[in-house]
Amino acid sequence: MALRAALRNKCGFSGMSGVVTQLFSCSSSSHGRVYAPPIVIAQRRNSSTSPKIKVDLDQSTGVAVMHMQNPPVNSLSLDFLTEFCINLEKLEMDKSCRGLIITSSVPKVFSAGLDIMEMYGTTPERCGEFWKAVQEMWLKLYSSNMVTIAAINGFSPAGGCLISLTCDYRIMADNPRYSIGLNETQLGIVAPFWFKDTMVNTVGHRTTEMSLELGLLYNPSEALKIGLVDHLVPEEQVLTTATQTMTKWLAIPDHARQITKSMMRKPTADKLTSNREADIQNFVSFITKDSIQKSLRVYLEMLRKRKG
Amino acid sequence: MALRAALRNKCGFSGMSGVVTQLFSCSSSSHGRVYAPPIVIAQRRNSSTSPKIKVDLDQSTGVAVMHMQNPPVNSLSLDFLTEFCINLEKLEMDKSCRGLIITSSVPKVFSAGLDIMEMYGTTPERCGEFWKAVQEMWLKLYSSNMVTIAAINGFSPAGGCLISLTCDYRIMADNPRYSIGLNETQLGIVAPFWFKDTMVNTVGHRTTEMSLELGLLYNPSEALKIGLVDHLVPEEQVLTTATQTMTKWLAIPDHARQITKSMMRKPTADKLTSNREADIQNFVSFITKDSIQKSLRVYLEMLRKRKG
Amino acid sequence: MALRAALRNKCGFSGMSGVVTQLFSCSSSSHGRVYAPPIVIAQRRNSSTSPKIKVDLDQSTGVAVMHMQNPPVNSLSLDFLTEFCINLEKLEMDKSCRGLIITSSVPKVFSAGLDIMEMYGTTPERCGEFWKAVQEMWLKLYSSNMVTIAAINGFSPAGGCLISLTCDYRIMADNPRYSIGLNETQLGIVAPFWFKDTMVNTVGHRTTEMSLELGLLYNPSEALKIGLVDHLVPEEQVLTTATQTMTKWLAIPDHARQITKSMMRKPTADKLTSNREADIQNFVSFITKDSIQKSLRVYLEMLRKRKG
Repeated sequence: MALRAALRNKCGFSGMSGVVTQLFSCSSSSHGRVYAPPIVIAQRRNSSTSPKIKVDLDQSTGVAVMHMQNPPVNSLSLDFLTEFCINLEKLEMDKSCRGLIITSSVPKVFSAGLDIMEMYGTTPERCGEFWKAVQEMWLKLYSSNMVTIAAINGFSPAGGCLISLTCDYRIMADNPRYSIGLNETQLGIVAPFWFKDTMVNTVGHRTTEMSLELGLLYNPSEALKIGLVDHLVPEEQVLTTATQTMTKWLAIPDHARQITKSMMRKPTADKLTSNREADIQNFVSFITKDSIQKSLRVYLEMLRKRKG
Repeated sequence: MALRAALRNKCGFSGMSGVVTQLFSCSSSSHGRVYAPPIVIAQRRNSSTSPKIKVDLDQSTGVAVMHMQNPPVNSLSLDFLTEFCINLEKLEMDKSCRGLIITSSVPKVFSAGLDIMEMYGTTPERCGEFWKAVQEMWLKLYSSNMVTIAAINGFSPAGGCLISLTCDYRIMADNPRYSIGLNETQLGIVAPFWFKDTMVNTVGHRTTEMSLELGLLYNPSEALKIGLVDHLVPEEQVLTTATQTMTKWLAIPDHARQITKSMMRKPTADKLTSNREADIQNFVSFITKDSIQKSLRVYLEMLRKRKG
Repeated sequence: MALRAALRNKCGFSGMSGVVTQLFSCSSSSHGRVYAPPIVIAQRRNSSTSPKIKVDLDQSTGVAVMHMQNPPVNSLSLDFLTEFCINLEKLEMDKSCRGLIITSSVPKVFSAGLDIMEMYGTTPERCGEFWKAVQEMWLKLYSSNMVTIAAINGFSPAGGCLISLTCDYRIMADNPRYSIGLNETQLGIVAPFWFKDTMVNTVGHRTTEMSLELGLLYNPSEALKIGLVDHLVPEEQVLTTATQTMTKWLAIPDHARQITKSMMRKPTADKLTSNREADIQNFVSFITKDSIQKSLRVYLEMLRKRKG
């Protein structure tokens, strides 16, 4: 039912915009449904060294909150992913930290996913380096010994959805203008096998098959219905609910929870670990194809016109 | 709940009939539920060369509609399957064809499944040839590059259910007298592993386990509830809805959808591809057992009496 | 939703008690929810030879009812498991027996799971012997040629839940004070991979992941919602409903049902069969750790105080 609703409500490509100010203007939707591309162009290439991620660790509770602050849409660039991984590794090694909440400081968007500028018109080397960082982020987060909770306080397509799925629990703002999903095919690109595995482990084979083939985005209540998120709350309660939920997870002895988590997730993580190089080659050769570069260019031009 | 309802409503073996005029006369059902055998006897062995399948390809949309027209119940004989595969292959190679809708021209029945006459009293050679054709049909359809939609406008047990499950999307007529399911065990025969895999990929392990062990048939609303079909519409809208749904699927770039479909389905298809000969041997040695031939004979005699 | 409800309602460790008279006194629950430890201390080590299991086989129907009668809480000791397996094997070899219903003669409890006294302060040898018996019970029951139905007429945590999941069908008393689940992590221990596989095959990957990591117990309606049980009835109808359901399962030809069951379950059973020794070593080395023994001691002392 939710699948059908998502299919029915899906906005067309023509109504999209990747800039955050226009994220919610899909005029063709009769349900106020939102569509935006899985990958977006950053408004400017920012070479500043200001951190793209802010981490607050509460020593009394052992819970860290990681705020993604990479405007306009928290796009996952190589720089962002590198900073993400460094922070994750620090927290993982800090014995005082047992839980991690991931959220966004950017209004209306959790993360719009992979940065298109890392894939368009770059060298194969740079492209491969970028993909390796995407892998690294997923591997570290999916296998984390910490309890990880996604506090999804905005739009969350493609890579933003992947970060959410990779956590242990997902709380989403109950705002019908937000949506979440692995919508890569809408852009003519393809979610790799480990995105797929992560989604299958969450919502099952059939829902994943249809979601990925159609690049479906779900509004919060549809997402809850199919199990893509676990809990909806009003937007202003997302972070406090995440904190309360964390307390319940941390009531379980760490060692027992960690062994159990590893039993559930290690086979899936191992599939990528033992195929990283081939997966990188596969991505690079796909994304550097003339036809794919051409669709990315068309798409970028459309975004630039909308911003103009 | 749907499982339990299906279990409760299931008609006994004694109330069945394989002829289409009696398909809906299961007197022991208090819910108007329908039961019919997974495999049925053709009313006559038809050696005519008139086509059992009619294909209409709309060049403007790139969508073909395949009408199964093998009265009385679209049973899947070797001739029928051969014709099915030839048509499928032609469309697959036709670059102008991107989508395929499969439906029935026979009133009240989509397909009653494998033709019992291909399994009863034949030679092991013929039996093996038949099974190879069933495999071929499934392999071609499950791996098709086209978008495939089943427009299920009638009763759809056993092999009829398999064809439906093998498509990308299932739209069923919302007529409570119709039913769908892999009900092989009701007849004392067994769905092979690739029927099972196809169902597990659609409705999950537990629902499949119970459905196959009990040979359950589901009415349309039960089938929707467990995810065996995706969409119910009034009978006269089945084909138009299929056409509208196809438009949405075809909005996705073919190459991205096809790569994604292959990622979801290839492991399952490969399991049969690398075990075809063993699977044939297994089927032939099972079906030619004296005890199985005897149950088929008892069953055929019952059908003949009912027709008399 | 059911997951969230279970999480919300879960009682804390402090409100638990393992003795049957106090099983339902979890004062911190606002929903009358029940919590009890996955493994309980037997009130006395019973060296009597009185049977812990009573079996009634109805020759006219071919259905056996196995009553667990090992007060106070049907804990699964080595003696109990040995007797369970002997009975199971006898019935399996008895051609007149086609179906098995498992239920409890102890009021309010189906089975409280593995006996903690088999894991605390014993020798590695005894501990390994115990674990081998747990494996044997599961292997025999999961692969049984009989139709197996759990008539869950009471509290059913941990090992009690495992027995239920291992059957073909689960009917539970609709008493909100009862609960069911694999709650091992609550005690700091871990469900092994084959407990996990059995649950994944029943309720899917995601529900299992969250249930096991949090050690969730579900009340009957939550359990029905996630598919952990198949059917709820008033407590006094559990056994009669099991008998009626058995009749429907036995209407299917045995050989077809058995081949189908084996197709669904053999890969899961084979995983343990080919790893039994490693699984025993793994259990023994985990459970004999100082830290684990210490948590078991703390837990036992708490139980003893509550009984005092």
